[in-house]
This record gives sequence, C-alpha cells and structure tokens, in this order.
Amino acid sequence: MNPASPLDNVRIVLSHTSHPGNIGATARAMKTMGLSRLYLVNPKSFPDSEADARASNARDILESACVCTSLEEAMGDTFLAAALTARSRDLSHPTRNARQAAGELIRYAHHHPVALLFGRESAGLTSAEISHCQLTVQIPANSAYSSLNLAAAVQIMAYELRMVLEEGVVADEPDPQLPEPASLQEIEGLHHHLEQVMVQSGFLDPTQPKRLMRRMRRLFARTRLEKEEVNILRGLLTAVNPHKPT
Amino acid sequence: MNPASPLDNVRIVLSHTSHPGNIGATARAMKTMGLSRLYLVNPKSFPDSEADARASNARDILESACVCTSLEEAMGDTFLAAALTARSRDLSHPTRNARQAAGELIRYAHHHPVALLFGRESAGLTSAEISHCQLTVQIPANSAYSSLNLAAAVQIMAYELRMVLEEGVVADEPDPQLPEPASLQEIEGLHHHLEQVMVQSGFLDPTQPKRLMRRMRRLFARTRLEKEEVNILRGLLTAVNPHKPT
Repeated sequence: MNPASPLDNVRIVLSHTSHPGNIGATARAMKTMGLSRLYLVNPKSFPDSEADARASNARDILESACVCTSLEEAMGDTFLAAALTARSRDLSHPTRNARQAAGELIRYAHHHPVALLFGRESAGLTSAEISHCQLTVQIPANSAYSSLNLAAAVQIMAYELRMVLEEGVVADEPDPQLPEPASLQEIEGLHHHLEQVMVQSGFLDPTQPKRLMRRMRRLFARTRLEKEEVNILRGLLTAVNPHKPT
Repeated sequence: MNPASPLDNVRIVLSHTSHPGNIGATARAMKTMGLSRLYLVNPKSFPDSEADARASNARDILESACVCTSLEEAMGDTFLAAALTARSRDLSHPTRNARQAAGELIRYAHHHPVALLFGRESAGLTSAEISHCQLTVQIPANSAYSSLNLAAAVQIMAYELRMVLEEGVVADEPDPQLPEPASLQEIEGLHHHLEQVMVQSGFLDPTQPKRLMRRMRRLFARTRLEKEEVNILRGLLTAVNPHKPT
C-alpha cells in the first residue's frame, strides 16, 4: 500500500479490553494487513509486557496507540463508525456482514477517517456504545458457537478491508457529487441539541430519556447525515426551542 | 450448517506446532466457523493446559483431534490438499489467494475429504511438506510485515471457507460428469512407483533424487490426477520397468 492508502484512515478502537495479550495480538493482526491506527478506550492494563509479547514485530503499533477515556475522544472526528456485534439487538442499527462493512468503510476511508469498534472480551459492546456508531457488523459464524477471540475478529475485519483494495472493487476515485458527510462529533452535537429541546418542550421526560433517544440515534444512524443537513436540523431546533432567547 | 456440511470434510492440519496456545486458538477459530476436524503432526506439546485455556469453549475440537506422526497419516486419504505459505517459492505449485483456495476446497469438500496444511510458527512449511500438496495458498498481507499468527491464519481460512457457503456461490449439486479424483495416497503411490522405475532405468541418480522428483510432483499437482489416470500411469510404469518379472 502506498502512504496515501485508505487503510491509513481506518482506526481500530478497542473498548475496555481486559486481556493485554489481546491488545498485542490485535496490533499484529492490524500490521499484517497494513492497518496502523489503534485506539484503546480504558484498557484494563496498558502498556503491558503480555501485549508486547503477543504483538511480535508489531510493537510499533502499540507504541503509537492512542489511549482514550471515552468513545467520543477515540471516534469523535471520524465520519463513519461500525460496531462489531456477535448478535442482532433490539432497536438494532442497519447490519452488514464483514465483507459488506469493509467495502463501505473503505469507500469513506478514501477521504475521511473511519472507525471499527470492538467491545469487551466477555460481553461485547453495550447498547450505549453501539448507539455512537452508524452501523453494526456481524462476522458470519457458527450459530452454535460464535464467540470469536477479540484479535481474531480484528484479523478478519483487517483482512476484509485489505481485500477490498486487493480486489479493486471500489473505485479509487471519489464521486465528485458526493455531499460532505457529517462527522460523529457534529452528529453528537445534534443529538445533544435535540435532547435538550425535547426536554424543554415537555416532549421527553428527562428521568426516562433512554429509549426515545436511542430510537432517534438509530434513525439518524441509518440516514448517514450530511454536514449541511446537521446544520439545517440544528437551525430548526434553535428555532423551535421554547426557551430560546427572544 | 447441517450435519452434511462440506465443512465436515475440511481438515485443518498443523505440522510441528511449537506453541500449544496456538493449537488451542486454532481450535477456537475452527469452531467459530463450523470446522471440526483438527490433525496435529508431531506437535511439540499436546495435550497441554495452555491449549485448553486458549480453546475456550472449543475444547471438544482438541479432544477429538488426531495426533499423527507423518503428513501421509494426516492427509493420505484426502483428495485435495492446500499448503499455506507466506511467500512464493522456487518451483512453486499453482498459487491461490485465500478466497480462491476456499472456493476450490469447498467444491471438492462436497464429496471428498480435503486438507489445509499449516507449518511451524517460526519457519512455515518445508519444501518437502509443500510437495505433498496440490496447491499453495497465500493470504494477502502487508508486504512489509506478512507474519500472521498461526491461529490468525487458520481463522481467515476458516472464515473464507464458511463465506463460500454463506454466499452460496458454489453450487451444492455435484457435476455428475466429474471424473473421480485420485486420493493423495494414490498419488503418493504413483510417485513412489515412478521414482523406482526412474532409478532402475538409470534415468535418475538415486543419490541426487530431490530436484527431479520435486519437479514431477509439481507437474502432477497441477494436473489434479483422476483415479483412472493414476491406474493408467502405474500400468505404464509396470510395463516399462526394465526390472519387471518376465
């Protein structure tokens, strides 16, 4: 891959990883496929000698890893985030398999940073974590035993991302008509604004906000908001806010 | 997958594995994708508590693993064997990428046992080991660092095998016209017979047999011999043998 490879725009984000060995094995899995941007959200132990050992000759990935305290910090400036899940959920996001998701991520990664989010070894991602992403990804697996090791799941996704480029299915040229997508940070700003207006208008009970806000997140995740649309919606929210300064 | 899945006909053969943890991780990688037949050729340590730990809930795969002392024992009765290699070699076999190889293996696996052969963690497969296979497989990787962990390589191949079935690209119905392929055992028998006749006829120096026999193996690997063809060739060898009983 040349220095301007879309793979340089793909982040692997590991949330609350328990076993440092899995962080090291993830670094190795990434480097073998040409990925390099590792983000660790509240890892249990890092740096750690076990991570170094399992990374083998991919310690440079560990050394340049970003350790974060929140998903917003790790993914706020990305433009497409996909959450790995082992099973479908209530109120689920649009779901892709590993191959489809890789194609979609690379399409964005030609121009914008994107993220693949992996959860805890034991329990995966929380619904709150998933709600920060625009789509969920499932790796096809044996229904009787679908529990892939964390680094093994990273390996498959990294492989599929590389294969998109190897097979050259996705055009390297951007569609010049494509409107600029909103960043996750801009979308988060919209959600906060929306929640505020819903509460202030009496539409949303602030003691029971979760389900309704998750539905709204799901809706906007599906639409892939553009930057301009976020601006329009926020303008509307400002206009309709009953507490607006007159 | 139903009980008659082609995945039941696919063997994962690990040759001379050094780290028992990799055997356990391989078992887990296999089971998540619906594979179950594990063959271990001279593993350094097996059974081993480290293998059990890394297998997680795939210990049943370890318990039913076949421990062998030779490749012939592990693969002799298979009909297509593919060797995983990180790089091309001199006198190389036909090479497929992971996806292509998976398609080819599944096509055979609808009716016959097939094998995927993985070498030592440190040095991969020897040329002698590769010469028992009909094709080599490369997993597309970063040319600057292509050293996948053993179990990670198994995970990708197992995933691609499953994906062939998930995507339904390969017809489940056999081609009724397809002639019956020769088993590796039958092909080995041919090679031994051929070498014997070459030596007895003075064509081959028995103190320097390696390169010539490897060329012959490569040739026949490419052709995918049928059962009937092996019989014809062996009949010919018997007929031309200068030492034949008169």
